[in-house]
Amino acid sequence: MIRVATASHAYNVLFGHSFLREAFESLADITRTADRIFVLTDENVWKAQGDTFTAAFPLPFEVYVLPGGEACKSFDQYNACQTFLLQQRATRKSLIIAFGGGAVGDLSGFVAATFMRGIPFIQVPTTILAHDSAVGGKTAINHPLGKNMIGAFYQPQAVVYDIAFLKTLPEQEIRSGMTEVIKHALISDEAWLNELMSRSIYDYSDDELSHHLQKGTQVKANIVAEDETEQSVRKYLNLGHTYGHAIEAASGYGNLSHGESVMIGLIYCLLLSEQYGGVTREQTMSVYRYAQSQRYPFDAVAKFDFETLLSYMQKDKKAEYGELQFVLLSKIGEPYVQKVDVAQCQEVDVLLRQLIAEGSQ
Amino acid sequence: MIRVATASHAYNVLFGHSFLREAFESLADITRTADRIFVLTDENVWKAQGDTFTAAFPLPFEVYVLPGGEACKSFDQYNACQTFLLQQRATRKSLIIAFGGGAVGDLSGFVAATFMRGIPFIQVPTTILAHDSAVGGKTAINHPLGKNMIGAFYQPQAVVYDIAFLKTLPEQEIRSGMTEVIKHALISDEAWLNELMSRSIYDYSDDELSHHLQKGTQVKANIVAEDETEQSVRKYLNLGHTYGHAIEAASGYGNLSHGESVMIGLIYCLLLSEQYGGVTREQTMSVYRYAQSQRYPFDAVAKFDFETLLSYMQKDKKAEYGELQFVLLSKIGEPYVQKVDVAQCQEVDVLLRQLIAEGSQ
Repeated sequence: MIRVATASHAYNVLFGHSFLREAFESLADITRTADRIFVLTDENVWKAQGDTFTAAFPLPFEVYVLPGGEACKSFDQYNACQTFLLQQRATRKSLIIAFGGGAVGDLSGFVAATFMRGIPFIQVPTTILAHDSAVGGKTAINHPLGKNMIGAFYQPQAVVYDIAFLKTLPEQEIRSGMTEVIKHALISDEAWLNELMSRSIYDYSDDELSHHLQKGTQVKANIVAEDETEQSVRKYLNLGHTYGHAIEAASGYGNLSHGESVMIGLIYCLLLSEQYGGVTREQTMSVYRYAQSQRYPFDAVAKFDFETLLSYMQKDKKAEYGELQFVLLSKIGEPYVQKVDVAQCQEVDVLLRQLIAEGSQ
Repeated sequence: MIRVATASHAYNVLFGHSFLREAFESLADITRTADRIFVLTDENVWKAQGDTFTAAFPLPFEVYVLPGGEACKSFDQYNACQTFLLQQRATRKSLIIAFGGGAVGDLSGFVAATFMRGIPFIQVPTTILAHDSAVGGKTAINHPLGKNMIGAFYQPQAVVYDIAFLKTLPEQEIRSGMTEVIKHALISDEAWLNELMSRSIYDYSDDELSHHLQKGTQVKANIVAEDETEQSVRKYLNLGHTYGHAIEAASGYGNLSHGESVMIGLIYCLLLSEQYGGVTREQTMSVYRYAQSQRYPFDAVAKFDFETLLSYMQKDKKAEYGELQFVLLSKIGEPYVQKVDVAQCQEVDVLLRQLIAEGSQ
């Protein structure tokens, strides 16, 4: 169990294997005060895991099934969830359970944050990626002009992380999720990074995976405890995300996964960190070669010119008017925030393209 | 100046006459950190007061003009504001100014609460009603299934209350706003209530009006300092609102004003308080006769049967599943929360209808 103590609210992240009933029985203090329970999930998760959930969940509930993937984070789906809750006569004392991956969690959290000005919710993540997104209270939906542009900081009452749900993950989802684990290692602990990269991400045992996810969650918990609303150190969690989000947005959401895009962004940030003397080419190459060996795709970069990516980076929430801000590493495990001018961004973009071109020969 | 110190954030409510420039100059600590300023307003306010605002406001800004009245609190307008901000390349450091009545403030606050997970905003209310709604951080939009059903608790950075804007208020708006002042007196101070009712609401001097509005704001500030998110004493501010919202909803938003509806709800709550021994018929009648003398309309009640109103009351955010909860008075100035069964609600509904029928003979 990991305790997440943010300024607004403290809660527990429970880890276990096939322990949904036990976990929710241990959360009776939270569920007991709920007059009704509403499970928000998506069609893929519900098809694959709905029976397991229903058999294990110890209380009556109503379920609302969203479309799969990033599609659920639309304005229309957000509105549809609110309508469902009102039609079901949900009240301020009703409890929402977000059962699914990062997209379901982001949407459900924002629904919970804003239904009647905020009702309690519990995250039940079903992906590796959601070990990251389910903790820390970032909730959001997408706007046609940008990802996660509308949302709130709103903490769950608890996170129930059952690694049994990870068994059915497709390969792309494993890659996507493991990027954030690797990111957590990059910003906190070189020895752990090396431990992670000593094995294939597809070969971890349940215990190893659980160990790495708990380590990642602890890194995140420490950071959000210090800075809930991203005024300072929480920015470190954005390592790789500025360039990564630009790649993801340019590709059209859903083509390249979030983590696959961020992996490209991580390599970009390592190259950029080299410019400031914090990281060696050898270190960059060891992460890049590991990513290649794990079948992370890098060919998307060549599809877009720098100007296109720049226009997306300038729309990033982390951007301030007229300048670009990156999280870099002064060494592995030590992140800091650096303003970078456009010329230098472009220089490193060229470097990245060269690296990829060489790598694919 | 009144200090509002909520758990999440403390800020000042500035009162003055034709002092917009001076007020914003005094808020330089807030405006200085803003990379851009976006004014959200509505067509009626902007037509009547836009020139005054533009002449007095000391900094460059962009303006977005919403439709007048409750219409701006729709999902579509909420979305349109977000789109406007993204198109304008607003960032996390941009500042929103809500310039208008309660509806503009509620919408703008919710936009600010959720744009990029929250950006700063300042309330510049232009109505008496907004002395209430601009303070305390309740923001919301409407859903076809209920008013204010989607929103957030999100405090402004400051409230600038320039009573010069009240000069052009139509009579219905004065009535609507003064209901909340009377409510603030009912839940806090019998002597002040009597002082208020000793004069016509249409005849207060600027100084008197400013005095009463500051008193009302202070009542609210004290309450939200103790209970920001309506877990306890903040419920007292809902005096008259359960029945009032039902009348307002049944009438269709925009026909009867918010405050006119709540005045009906206040009389209902006084009658209900009589049942529990907290208020005398004489006290109820003195408020009812004052309201009549001030041309508050009561004929809307006869248009709807109790079952219709009940169905709206059961959808109220304050309702819990299967029961009705009212704020009542144990005496004038002393509110408390009481669960009331439907039979008694109906009994008092009959009493109210009798009173109105007698009053209109």
